[in-house]
Amino acid sequence: MSLALAVDFGGTKVEAALVDDAGVVLPGSRFRSPTGPTASSEALAAAVDEVVTAALAARPDGVELLGAGIGSAGPINVAAGRISPLNVAAWREYPLLDQVRSHLPGLPAVLRMDGLCITLAEHWVGAAQGESNVMGMIVSTGVGGGLILNGLTVPGPTGNAGHIGHVEVGGFDVRCKCGGIGCVEAVASGPRTVEWAQQQGFAGTTGEDIATAYAAGDPIAIAAVRRAGRAIGQAIGSTTAVDDLDVVAIGGGFSHVTPDLFTIIRETIQERAAFPFVAKVRVVPSGLSGDGPLIGAAALIHQPELLG
Amino acid sequence: MSLALAVDFGGTKVEAALVDDAGVVLPGSRFRSPTGPTASSEALAAAVDEVVTAALAARPDGVELLGAGIGSAGPINVAAGRISPLNVAAWREYPLLDQVRSHLPGLPAVLRMDGLCITLAEHWVGAAQGESNVMGMIVSTGVGGGLILNGLTVPGPTGNAGHIGHVEVGGFDVRCKCGGIGCVEAVASGPRTVEWAQQQGFAGTTGEDIATAYAAGDPIAIAAVRRAGRAIGQAIGSTTAVDDLDVVAIGGGFSHVTPDLFTIIRETIQERAAFPFVAKVRVVPSGLSGDGPLIGAAALIHQPELLG
Repeated sequence: MSLALAVDFGGTKVEAALVDDAGVVLPGSRFRSPTGPTASSEALAAAVDEVVTAALAARPDGVELLGAGIGSAGPINVAAGRISPLNVAAWREYPLLDQVRSHLPGLPAVLRMDGLCITLAEHWVGAAQGESNVMGMIVSTGVGGGLILNGLTVPGPTGNAGHIGHVEVGGFDVRCKCGGIGCVEAVASGPRTVEWAQQQGFAGTTGEDIATAYAAGDPIAIAAVRRAGRAIGQAIGSTTAVDDLDVVAIGGGFSHVTPDLFTIIRETIQERAAFPFVAKVRVVPSGLSGDGPLIGAAALIHQPELLG
Repeated sequence: MSLALAVDFGGTKVEAALVDDAGVVLPGSRFRSPTGPTASSEALAAAVDEVVTAALAARPDGVELLGAGIGSAGPINVAAGRISPLNVAAWREYPLLDQVRSHLPGLPAVLRMDGLCITLAEHWVGAAQGESNVMGMIVSTGVGGGLILNGLTVPGPTGNAGHIGHVEVGGFDVRCKCGGIGCVEAVASGPRTVEWAQQQGFAGTTGEDIATAYAAGDPIAIAAVRRAGRAIGQAIGSTTAVDDLDVVAIGGGFSHVTPDLFTIIRETIQERAAFPFVAKVRVVPSGLSGDGPLIGAAALIHQPELLG
C-alpha cells in the first residue's frame, strides 16, 4: 500500500486526508476546517496548514507517502500553482501549491481544479469507470465540472477547463456574475433556482425546501425543478456538441432534489434529435461518496498516467 | 518530397488534390465536383470517384504517395468510417472512407470532420501556428469548427467534437433544426443573419448584400452584424469556459462581412470579465487560403503525431 495526501479547497471548507492506491480514504486521516467568503488570507492559510498537518500525522509508520494532490475551486492558474476561487475573495493568485508542498519536502505535488478531481474520482471509483470521454459535474451552490477526453484529463492551459457552469443556455435572459447571459449556473444552481421560485411566490428558502415541496406536488417547485433540469440538459447538449462526451456524472447537493431531475435533463438532451452523437450522451447520478473530492485529488498522484 | 491525397467532402462540392509535406497543394492536382442536398447517392459516389481519380492521375512519376486524408461535413462516424452530412440527405452512414481507400490499395486512409481538418490547417500553415489549444471555426452557410487541445486533435469518440455551431447562446429564443434553442448556427450563420435582417425590413438577400449595406452604414445591416457577432462571441465564451482555449481562428464566407465582426466578437468575450481564462482567448481571422480544407485533410497523413 502507498498513500497520497489529498487536499480539497473550497468556498466553505478545506479538507485533507490520506488516500491509498485503491482510492480509499485512510480511516482517521480526514480533517476539515472552515474557509468562507469573508475569511482573511492568514486565516485561510492557517486552515490549510491545520488540516494538512493533521492528515500527515495520521500516516502509519512504514507506509510510503507518494506526494500531494490538491483540488481547488476555480479559477486557478495551474502553471503558477496559484488559485483565485471566485467565492473566496481574500485569495487571488494565492500560491496554494507551494504552501502544501512545503509540508512534503522532496515529494511531488499537483494542483488541479476541483471539477477535474471529481471527474478523476468518478472515473476511478464512481459512475464513469471504464469510460474515456467523461464530464464529472456538480450542481450545488454553483455548477462546475471537469473533463476526461480520449482517456486523459483536460486541464486546459490555465487549468480551468471544465467550467460548464458558465456555458450559456438558450431562452434564458438572465445575467450571470461572470458577464455571460443565461449561464447555466445563473439559471440552475440551488440558490438561483430557489430565487426564481421565490419570485413566483414560493415561500421556502433552500434547495431542501424545493425538494420537499416537489415531492408534495407543489406546482411552483415542479416548475422550478423543470426549469433547472432543462437548463442543465441544454448545457450538457452544448458541451457534448463541442466535446462529443459519452457520459456525464452529476453530483452535488441540488442534484438530489428529486430523481426526476435526471429524467428532465435526459429528455432535454433527446430534443437534439438531429445529432445522434449529442443524444447518445448518458447522464447518470454521481457514484461518489462524500470522499469523492479527496479521492479525486489523490488520483492526481496515484494515477499520473491520466494527466493530460 | 512526399504527397498525400486530400479529399474535402461538403454540402455543395467535393474536392480532391495532392498536398506535399510542406502543406502546399501540388499545382494542377486540385479537382472539384458538385454535391448538393438533392444529389442521389450514386451521383455523389461518382463525384468522389471523379475528383479522386483526377487528383491521383496528377502525381508526378517517382514521388511517394503516403495515403489519403479525408475531411467531411458532419456528423460522421469515425470508428466506422461513415458520414451522414446534415445537408446531404442521400448519405446517411455512407462508407466514404472505404470508397476513397479503394483508390489507394495498401495505403492508410484517415477520415475526420471538416472542422477538425480546418483546425489542423490553421495549426500547420495558418493563424494558429505554434498554439496548443485551438479552435478552427467556420462562419458561412453553417457554423462549425474543430479542436486541438493540449497539442492534440480532439476528434471525440464518434468523430464529431468541435460542433460549435450547436452551442446555445443566451438571450436568443430561436429554435435550431438540431432541436436546440438559440444554437449559434441558428442565430449567426450567413443565411440566418440575412433572414433576421429581412424580418426587420432589409431588402437584400445574401451575406454579400449585408456586407455592402454595412459598409454604407445601413442601420439594419449594422444591427444584423452586431447580433451575429455577439452570438459568435457568446458561443466562443461558453466553449472557452469548458475547453480553456487560447486561440480561435475564424474563416468562412460570412466571417468576411466586415472586419468589425471580429471587434464585436472580442468585445462580447471581454464581458466575461470575472474569468481571465475566458477573456484571454484570442479571436483572429483565418490564416488560410481556399486550399485550407484540403491542406488540413492532408495533415491527417503528414502529421499523424497530432491525431488524438
